Amino acid sequence: MTGVAETSPRPAGSRTRLTGPHARLAGPVRVVGAGLLGASVGLGLRAHGVEVILDDASPSGLRLAVDYGAGRLAAADDRPQLIVVAVPPDRTAEVVAAELAAHPDAVVTDVASVKAPIAAELAARLAAAGGTDDGGLPARYVGSHPLAGRERGGAISARADLFMGRPWVVCRRDGVDAAAARVVESLILDLGASPVELPADAHDAAVALVSHAPQLVSSLMAKRLVEAPDAALGLAGQGVRDVTRIASSDPQLWVQILGANGPAVAGILRDLRDDLDTVVAALADPDAAGARRTLATELAAGNAGVARLPGKHGQDRRYASVVVLVDDRPGELGRLLTELGEIDVNMEDLRLEHSPGAQVGLAEIAVLPQVRQRAVDELAARGWRIAG
Amino acid sequence: MTGVAETSPRPAGSRTRLTGPHARLAGPVRVVGAGLLGASVGLGLRAHGVEVILDDASPSGLRLAVDYGAGRLAAADDRPQLIVVAVPPDRTAEVVAAELAAHPDAVVTDVASVKAPIAAELAARLAAAGGTDDGGLPARYVGSHPLAGRERGGAISARADLFMGRPWVVCRRDGVDAAAARVVESLILDLGASPVELPADAHDAAVALVSHAPQLVSSLMAKRLVEAPDAALGLAGQGVRDVTRIASSDPQLWVQILGANGPAVAGILRDLRDDLDTVVAALADPDAAGARRTLATELAAGNAGVARLPGKHGQDRRYASVVVLVDDRPGELGRLLTELGEIDVNMEDLRLEHSPGAQVGLAEIAVLPQVRQRAVDELAARGWRIAG
Repeated sequence: MTGVAETSPRPAGSRTRLTGPHARLAGPVRVVGAGLLGASVGLGLRAHGVEVILDDASPSGLRLAVDYGAGRLAAADDRPQLIVVAVPPDRTAEVVAAELAAHPDAVVTDVASVKAPIAAELAARLAAAGGTDDGGLPARYVGSHPLAGRERGGAISARADLFMGRPWVVCRRDGVDAAAARVVESLILDLGASPVELPADAHDAAVALVSHAPQLVSSLMAKRLVEAPDAALGLAGQGVRDVTRIASSDPQLWVQILGANGPAVAGILRDLRDDLDTVVAALADPDAAGARRTLATELAAGNAGVARLPGKHGQDRRYASVVVLVDDRPGELGRLLTELGEIDVNMEDLRLEHSPGAQVGLAEIAVLPQVRQRAVDELAARGWRIAG
Repeated sequence: MTGVAETSPRPAGSRTRLTGPHARLAGPVRVVGAGLLGASVGLGLRAHGVEVILDDASPSGLRLAVDYGAGRLAAADDRPQLIVVAVPPDRTAEVVAAELAAHPDAVVTDVASVKAPIAAELAARLAAAGGTDDGGLPARYVGSHPLAGRERGGAISARADLFMGRPWVVCRRDGVDAAAARVVESLILDLGASPVELPADAHDAAVALVSHAPQLVSSLMAKRLVEAPDAALGLAGQGVRDVTRIASSDPQLWVQILGANGPAVAGILRDLRDDLDTVVAALADPDAAGARRTLATELAAGNAGVARLPGKHGQDRRYASVVVLVDDRPGELGRLLTELGEIDVNMEDLRLEHSPGAQVGLAEIAVLPQVRQRAVDELAARGWRIAG
């Protein structure tokens, strides 16, 4: 996977670790903040048999997460090996400082989605409280950020597998204790995620680009639909749906994220705004000299940008697609995919296209190019209608 | 389906019409332009036994579409019932005028994705050529636009089902011959699409909003990725992938579409640009008075906008979701969906989430809320791991 450091391929059977007892962490692990991320950390570690202690400023939220099986309530004599702070970004530094003070032997990490401002605020808090051993940050604090989430938050949406296969950034820096860093890495590996080392500034610039700016772009495009006539919305296809999907994200959480990474996101959106001005001028008079070339240049740059995204989705040239017509009734898609298994074709990705009211859907199945023709032939022989 | 007029539910067996002989059209149908849309029209009509005549300015493109089975070559004594002009937008009016002149008894439609500028250009051409019977446009010309397409163009990507279940706008206007309008409606119904009547201006405003503006927004966001460090791209998740997916569209085609609908698209993007300025100012100083409220307001407006999109995808509140962990090996997803069929749960939508390198994927299945709990219970009883 391009750009993700130290993603060691796991052996084929390693996913069974999820329910196995062989955790790297000894525990107990104290998780502060029992929302989506904290409760998911708890569930994931508990599945390995690691003892998890949960805490949350909200008694009802805490109770829900405990009932959900994400951990137990704290006790006075807890001696956690590791503390995971999973509270909202604007409370993270304060909670990390408190946990460092309350548990002088524990390694502490946080999972906030911005890193440099939190490190700066934490250093300021610790300096005010009497100095540290690292020119600002203690050797046993290691900031981190799992690139995982869902549109729905809260413990109720938590799952043990939330982090599986996802990158999890570790902000190592000079002065971090090597053993502390290994503990955080063990957490990440136990949860099935891939550790990625980045300095805090590089992390914040990266998420501004691949997460925070796209969020606002999606929201601002979706805002255009608020006043749209029903007839216009009835013409919507998959394109506008994809562009605006993440516009359904929680505003309260995103205000905190964006507020903590404002300047980095602003820089990206300023560049986008300049391009938008160029495009608007070209659109206002498309027959002016150079206007169409301007539009073509911007569209081609978009082609080049999206082609750089790694992974199975999108513009991945490693796979070919087979488009199959599937009747809209229970079990039909299942039968298709079962038969794909029977003819020993592995599906690399699946995209389902289904228009409201239609009696059929289209299943676009990504396969390795060398098996595409065989898949098409064998599916057609079994009576499937191949649409592309 | 909100905003789509006259979508009559088809009976369960009606999809078999696709390979049946019972076309509404008598034919022959002459299709001018043998690209994705024209060849798909040809394939769809041929599947009903309708005689299709193909023509294209490119002899090699024409030969490919004929070989593909989309129709036959033109003959001197052809007397088409209907002519479908499916050439690029900047040639549409010219070709429609030529076809009207060459075939004085035929109904003529075009499938270009902008309507008012083409109608105006056509009226000007006909006036220059000697007047018409409709204050500009002849009674047997009916502009139309199928909301269907693929990222890949050309006859090679054509499919008989391209239009199935999709809206197809018909630009009726005063002076259109009722019989001519019925012929175009028959074409649409024969291809499995849903006729939607809109005036040309309303159509152009609608597609500016739900298609053209999202295309540019996606392209401009994707452009930001061109110079991104690999490490940043390695953190990309589904959000940025969705926002930028359509940025892979063909620039040449889109320059024509955008050029023909420039002012309408410019108006939408100007509003977006103003919001972007507001957001950039708030991000530049998130601690300023009102800055966070500004961000929250814009994000909440995005929530409201995306919630208005009709249909099965996105923020449809009519469905609940079941998230199931699926091992990444052939047939597993098939087995899941087959078992869903066995327990008689209809899947309304499916979203597959699969991270590169992960041994498991997450299948998010949309179901009717009243069957969700039963689906969860029965799947869990069969050993599936339910993740949410």
